[in-house]
Amino acid sequence: MNISIDLNCDMGEAFGQHDTGQDGELMKYITSANIACGFHAGDFSVMHRTLALALRHGVAIGAHPSLPDLQGFGRRTMSVTPQEVYEMTLYQVGALHALAAAQGAALHHVKPHGALYNMAAKDRKLADAIVQAIADFDPSLFLYGLAGSALVHSARDKGLPCSEEVFADRTYQPDGSLTPRTQPGALIENIDNAVNQVVQMVGTQTVTAVNGARVPLAPGTICLHGDGPHAVIFAQSIHHALKTNGIRLTAPVNS
Amino acid sequence: MNISIDLNCDMGEAFGQHDTGQDGELMKYITSANIACGFHAGDFSVMHRTLALALRHGVAIGAHPSLPDLQGFGRRTMSVTPQEVYEMTLYQVGALHALAAAQGAALHHVKPHGALYNMAAKDRKLADAIVQAIADFDPSLFLYGLAGSALVHSARDKGLPCSEEVFADRTYQPDGSLTPRTQPGALIENIDNAVNQVVQMVGTQTVTAVNGARVPLAPGTICLHGDGPHAVIFAQSIHHALKTNGIRLTAPVNS
Amino acid sequence: MNISIDLNCDMGEAFGQHDTGQDGELMKYITSANIACGFHAGDFSVMHRTLALALRHGVAIGAHPSLPDLQGFGRRTMSVTPQEVYEMTLYQVGALHALAAAQGAALHHVKPHGALYNMAAKDRKLADAIVQAIADFDPSLFLYGLAGSALVHSARDKGLPCSEEVFADRTYQPDGSLTPRTQPGALIENIDNAVNQVVQMVGTQTVTAVNGARVPLAPGTICLHGDGPHAVIFAQSIHHALKTNGIRLTAPVNS
Amino acid sequence: MNISIDLNCDMGEAFGQHDTGQDGELMKYITSANIACGFHAGDFSVMHRTLALALRHGVAIGAHPSLPDLQGFGRRTMSVTPQEVYEMTLYQVGALHALAAAQGAALHHVKPHGALYNMAAKDRKLADAIVQAIADFDPSLFLYGLAGSALVHSARDKGLPCSEEVFADRTYQPDGSLTPRTQPGALIENIDNAVNQVVQMVGTQTVTAVNGARVPLAPGTICLHGDGPHAVIFAQSIHHALKTNGIRLTAPVNS
Repeated sequence: MNISIDLNCDMGEAFGQHDTGQDGELMKYITSANIACGFHAGDFSVMHRTLALALRHGVAIGAHPSLPDLQGFGRRTMSVTPQEVYEMTLYQVGALHALAAAQGAALHHVKPHGALYNMAAKDRKLADAIVQAIADFDPSLFLYGLAGSALVHSARDKGLPCSEEVFADRTYQPDGSLTPRTQPGALIENIDNAVNQVVQMVGTQTVTAVNGARVPLAPGTICLHGDGPHAVIFAQSIHHALKTNGIRLTAPVNS
Repeated sequence: MNISIDLNCDMGEAFGQHDTGQDGELMKYITSANIACGFHAGDFSVMHRTLALALRHGVAIGAHPSLPDLQGFGRRTMSVTPQEVYEMTLYQVGALHALAAAQGAALHHVKPHGALYNMAAKDRKLADAIVQAIADFDPSLFLYGLAGSALVHSARDKGLPCSEEVFADRTYQPDGSLTPRTQPGALIENIDNAVNQVVQMVGTQTVTAVNGARVPLAPGTICLHGDGPHAVIFAQSIHHALKTNGIRLTAPVNS
Repeated sequence: MNISIDLNCDMGEAFGQHDTGQDGELMKYITSANIACGFHAGDFSVMHRTLALALRHGVAIGAHPSLPDLQGFGRRTMSVTPQEVYEMTLYQVGALHALAAAQGAALHHVKPHGALYNMAAKDRKLADAIVQAIADFDPSLFLYGLAGSALVHSARDKGLPCSEEVFADRTYQPDGSLTPRTQPGALIENIDNAVNQVVQMVGTQTVTAVNGARVPLAPGTICLHGDGPHAVIFAQSIHHALKTNGIRLTAPVNS
Repeated sequence: MNISIDLNCDMGEAFGQHDTGQDGELMKYITSANIACGFHAGDFSVMHRTLALALRHGVAIGAHPSLPDLQGFGRRTMSVTPQEVYEMTLYQVGALHALAAAQGAALHHVKPHGALYNMAAKDRKLADAIVQAIADFDPSLFLYGLAGSALVHSARDKGLPCSEEVFADRTYQPDGSLTPRTQPGALIENIDNAVNQVVQMVGTQTVTAVNGARVPLAPGTICLHGDGPHAVIFAQSIHHALKTNGIRLTAPVNS
């Protein structure tokens, strides 16, 4: 058996004097860092030092573009056109690219943030705008998107490399979708259960839905949440469980 | 005689619904466009359409990075460290680079804006920060800086291509510096006088200072102001006068 | 006959160096100025000088609060909670209040801007949040809201003084609603037609819908658009037509 | 003996998702809260809940206006005119006033923040602009300013109530000024030494300068820093030491 998986985490979400604090610890356990690009968090100074941190840990660097909404942390849905999404994606990816290039590093992937991620998961026009922006700038970059979403379909249709994202701490419905956060049981708070779900998802390409059914799944990258008091122990546990199960941790590479 | 000169102008300084209006006309007469990158003006949508406009006119594309100050239009001096200037330059240059690359175009130069331009003209550490940022990202990019300033010296010392900027509508002191705006006679408001000064500067590599002395000068690019009611007629007149005098209008190229 | 009506217009929508230019002319013809409060346009300097301008013209001063969206000019729908709307309304109304008080002036009304206006016209919870904010700060302030909208109903239910807003340059449906902008014929571009509609609305408390039916209406204030090349001539024409028809122009007063 | 003193602390310096965390603890030990007004930190939601927190603790409410600089936390010197300072002070004081009024509370004081505080301590024109803004809005508000500074002199000259601010954790020069932070020994890091300095300052109206000299001083309010890991224990210790020494803790009142 020669299985590998990617562990990604949002990084560099400090802003000015406001720090988030755990990036240094989390970098030890992940293989892909999604770095905020100034629109929801992460000003140019935060970006510069987060890039340096990722490079020291050999973690793949990704842009984490957002709607322009510092106060709302990019979590507020906004009415934006596909053209605006295309432009804001390029702006943010380019900003991070230049800061990375100046340190001799290259971008590896793009993962949209927050409301933009969720909007593009459902709205094919917004998904296409993001995919087109990436393809027009550098078609070798990976897109990370919600497994089975419009984003993933758009990337596949355009031939952009793509990793389907699954979640360690969210439960799944029989149709393979995430249990909405508004429903009870949406979150897996027990760390052992989360670890077991991850090992199953990666090892067997299935997930056990809330009704007990085994649902097929093709996980390319696992999202770890970087906030919350248990983020580090959570990341560490998943990292170790995967290694113990003989699964190689690595960012995706173009074949 | 085979003399050439560059005519540059700040472009894309609209913001959201706020338009500036004359970019389309001015593009006809210039050879280099310094495009605002979102920090003093020019959001991602304005940048996208200004790039398209410059490309249609065959005008060389430059980044016009600024201090982060939308309300103050980047004209307010701020206390920033060289490290911050290094980072904000990369951020802005990179953002424009990606939007340009997506249209199949490449950046040609960088001209700092407003307070950043003035601060870096005098403060060698800030000048070095800008030059280092450009060199670390793409050492083939030209720097446009005030003739004789710290910016120009820094670029020359680091081997970055550089064009010394002179002004059509500003008078000069016997030491080759600009007459400060706070002094009477700093501005040349008569269009014929401005045209004559430009033709003299380019044709003879001298300028006649306010005391009548002829001062040597090595102009690489002439700054045209894009605002004001007479900006277009001003640009047109200088453009035609230079051509009539057999001077070729072109953006600088690496030898 | 002793009929009066209010003419309101959005004012102070400049930002930093970006001017909008016609406020000085428009102030001559209106009776209520809705002054931007920094969230969609109108920084503290613009607010200060717009207040002075309104005072010189004896025009009633209103706050024009918006969603926080400078780039989008407050026109982008955003997901905000009623609590956030309550707070952002107070913040903006208070900011303008203090700048007005320092000039010896008092606020007269509040008119939500752009997307906030439209969202609160339909969503009773957002309408209630705005009305509650105004009532908690100063229950003598008038609310200007779309005629027949949730905003108006909320104000009436809470006992807040309220003026129903109608439009000179928009056509109406048989149910008294505005023809959506996405439909043909939504806008009245002919100035005489707009003037006639205004005179009819004020004089007869009816409007002729697109199907020819006469629809009852209780206009308290007429919205004049301040942008566009014909804004001044438009305002002037409506102002004069109303006066010619013996209609008194005045901002609403508490009885 | 019937001595009283005020303990003030900067509060509400969170922003969006970025929290600062210790406000709830610190409120127990202070008598005046300087609440950020959205320009360096503290959006409208943070302001609303910080006001509620201060009210629950019976702490006097002050506005903490800043230069417009979210990324720099208001700590970067900027070139602003006295007119702009006048306007930005009114804008921020008014915004907090309205949010407070809606909760049935009144403002008690204004303390400029960061770079604005330091600039106005030395520049009499900027000091006058702040004092004039406060006086024009509500001349019963106290100004908190650096002891002996231009701010204090301006307030006294204009008849605005004023409390001179001294620092628990900073050493003093023989002329009564603070030892600059760039010099060794500027900060008092030992908590007992800080407590002793505070008790001496309040009890004897003197401070022992770095050279051992006793310097006269008229402290009206003591600044406690709200950041840093020891902020709470520091505040608690000073609070208790003052009480133990029979000193009453209370915000200043107009006589």
